[in-house]
Amino acid sequence: MSKGDFKLQFDRARDFIEKSLEDLCSRPVALVPPRLMDSMAYSLRAGGKRLRPVLCIKAGEVFGLEREKTVPLALALEMIHTASLIHDDLPAMDDDTLRRGKPTNHVLFGDALAILAGDALMAWAFEHPLSVLPGMGLPSDRICRSMHVLANALGPEGICGGQVLDIDPQSMDDSPDFPWKVTRQKTAVLLRASILSGAVLAGADGDSLEALGAFGDHLGSAFQIVDDILDVTSTAEELGKTPGKDESQNKRTFVAAYGLQKARELAARESRLASEALEGVRGDTAFFSDLSDYLCERTK
Amino acid sequence: MSKGDFKLQFDRARDFIEKSLEDLCSRPVALVPPRLMDSMAYSLRAGGKRLRPVLCIKAGEVFGLEREKTVPLALALEMIHTASLIHDDLPAMDDDTLRRGKPTNHVLFGDALAILAGDALMAWAFEHPLSVLPGMGLPSDRICRSMHVLANALGPEGICGGQVLDIDPQSMDDSPDFPWKVTRQKTAVLLRASILSGAVLAGADGDSLEALGAFGDHLGSAFQIVDDILDVTSTAEELGKTPGKDESQNKRTFVAAYGLQKARELAARESRLASEALEGVRGDTAFFSDLSDYLCERTK
Repeated sequence: MSKGDFKLQFDRARDFIEKSLEDLCSRPVALVPPRLMDSMAYSLRAGGKRLRPVLCIKAGEVFGLEREKTVPLALALEMIHTASLIHDDLPAMDDDTLRRGKPTNHVLFGDALAILAGDALMAWAFEHPLSVLPGMGLPSDRICRSMHVLANALGPEGICGGQVLDIDPQSMDDSPDFPWKVTRQKTAVLLRASILSGAVLAGADGDSLEALGAFGDHLGSAFQIVDDILDVTSTAEELGKTPGKDESQNKRTFVAAYGLQKARELAARESRLASEALEGVRGDTAFFSDLSDYLCERTK
Repeated sequence: MSKGDFKLQFDRARDFIEKSLEDLCSRPVALVPPRLMDSMAYSLRAGGKRLRPVLCIKAGEVFGLEREKTVPLALALEMIHTASLIHDDLPAMDDDTLRRGKPTNHVLFGDALAILAGDALMAWAFEHPLSVLPGMGLPSDRICRSMHVLANALGPEGICGGQVLDIDPQSMDDSPDFPWKVTRQKTAVLLRASILSGAVLAGADGDSLEALGAFGDHLGSAFQIVDDILDVTSTAEELGKTPGKDESQNKRTFVAAYGLQKARELAARESRLASEALEGVRGDTAFFSDLSDYLCERTK
């Protein structure tokens, strides 16, 4: 696939996600207090690459499932991601006031609403797919398995565990393994789940799922290393959030553990390993391979 | 059923829950940071009546499903309940330092861990049943439907919405309907879901589900009115938490809206309506009817 084709495919998938997300956010829901819906919708609408939902839809397509059937899962992944960002930004955690160039949720709505908007988005991530997928003629066991992938990625072994490692001084250590451990749970786990949940729903075979899981892990590492690099090399305008926060908060980043040059090499290695993992997938994975190359180029 | 029989049945179900919960809390989980597990387990172990999981198990039994098969759902309900209490107690919300006679989670673990323990418990509430129920020979569509009941009860139309009504000044109003609205979303919704999820998993018919839903709504209202009454009539020792908090936080309680005497009458009425609703259930509902009577007696 040419670079232009990849960008076009990504943008098309993202546009479809944006439209579906906007439909969901603007649909009237009688029982939801308007202030809660405003707070949830504010953060859902606040841009971003929509990488996780795009991965989910594209993984479904590899195994022949049309995007109309993966989109409820894709939106759920964006809800989980958004919820975790809202909670990460709270004064009790990273205390960030800027996210994607806009005020963070708690700055606009207050801490209590921000906590509850995060909670509600996590629950909605299960409620929405479980309310629409069964009516789409998909086998219930696949729905159960894909929802399990999401729950595992969010739970104590997933993002929540990763965030504890990231912010709790008593859970940190100075070993060079530590950034890998945090990344696996905090970042890679949801990228991996985005791909696997779409593939599971589409009925992918076991070997392909295993290969896609390995791809997701390496992609997640590459992604986090690139993020750590950009945190020290970018301006606020480029980043859409406050740069240099990692260092000021004494985070165990890849740059802190390995230095900038070695971190760049690690990102390139993880990106290459990601592409190699794709060889085990029974289907057309050109999009995923190009994505991995594209991500890594951001650091150059 | 005699009062003694009811108490015995309740205590047996609760003992079974306690044992299952302890098994789950003490099981080693490699990827979960120990401090996160400690924080989650601290609040899960912190007593309480285990009313929600008991309701779930007993509802399954009405339709012939053994408690070993409903217990994953039952534990999930206790996780959701516990998560919502941890977040409710945070300084950004009700700012409570005492719960069930013990320090609240954030007092011991700090705000960040308390937020993440709540998040992780919410996710675990989906992950745990979705990882064990499919291996128990239960139809996948029933698993999906019971998980949807849980997600709906937690989400923006459920507990999270109810909590916004309860704490956000801009979402409150002074109408006499307001305490009913808050109660439906904050309290009744999870009692209702506890009963319905167990019944759905057991394959209950539509008429019975409708009747049980109405029972859950009235039981939830009775339960909340009793709670509001006890908040003004009890000591901290009796209550296991700080009494008089509702008034000092200017909450729109039933006692504030109707006065103590009228609130007692409303609790009795809701309890009676709950029992009447049970007439539509095709199965032995003596336990549920006795439970409703028992709850109401606490106010006398």
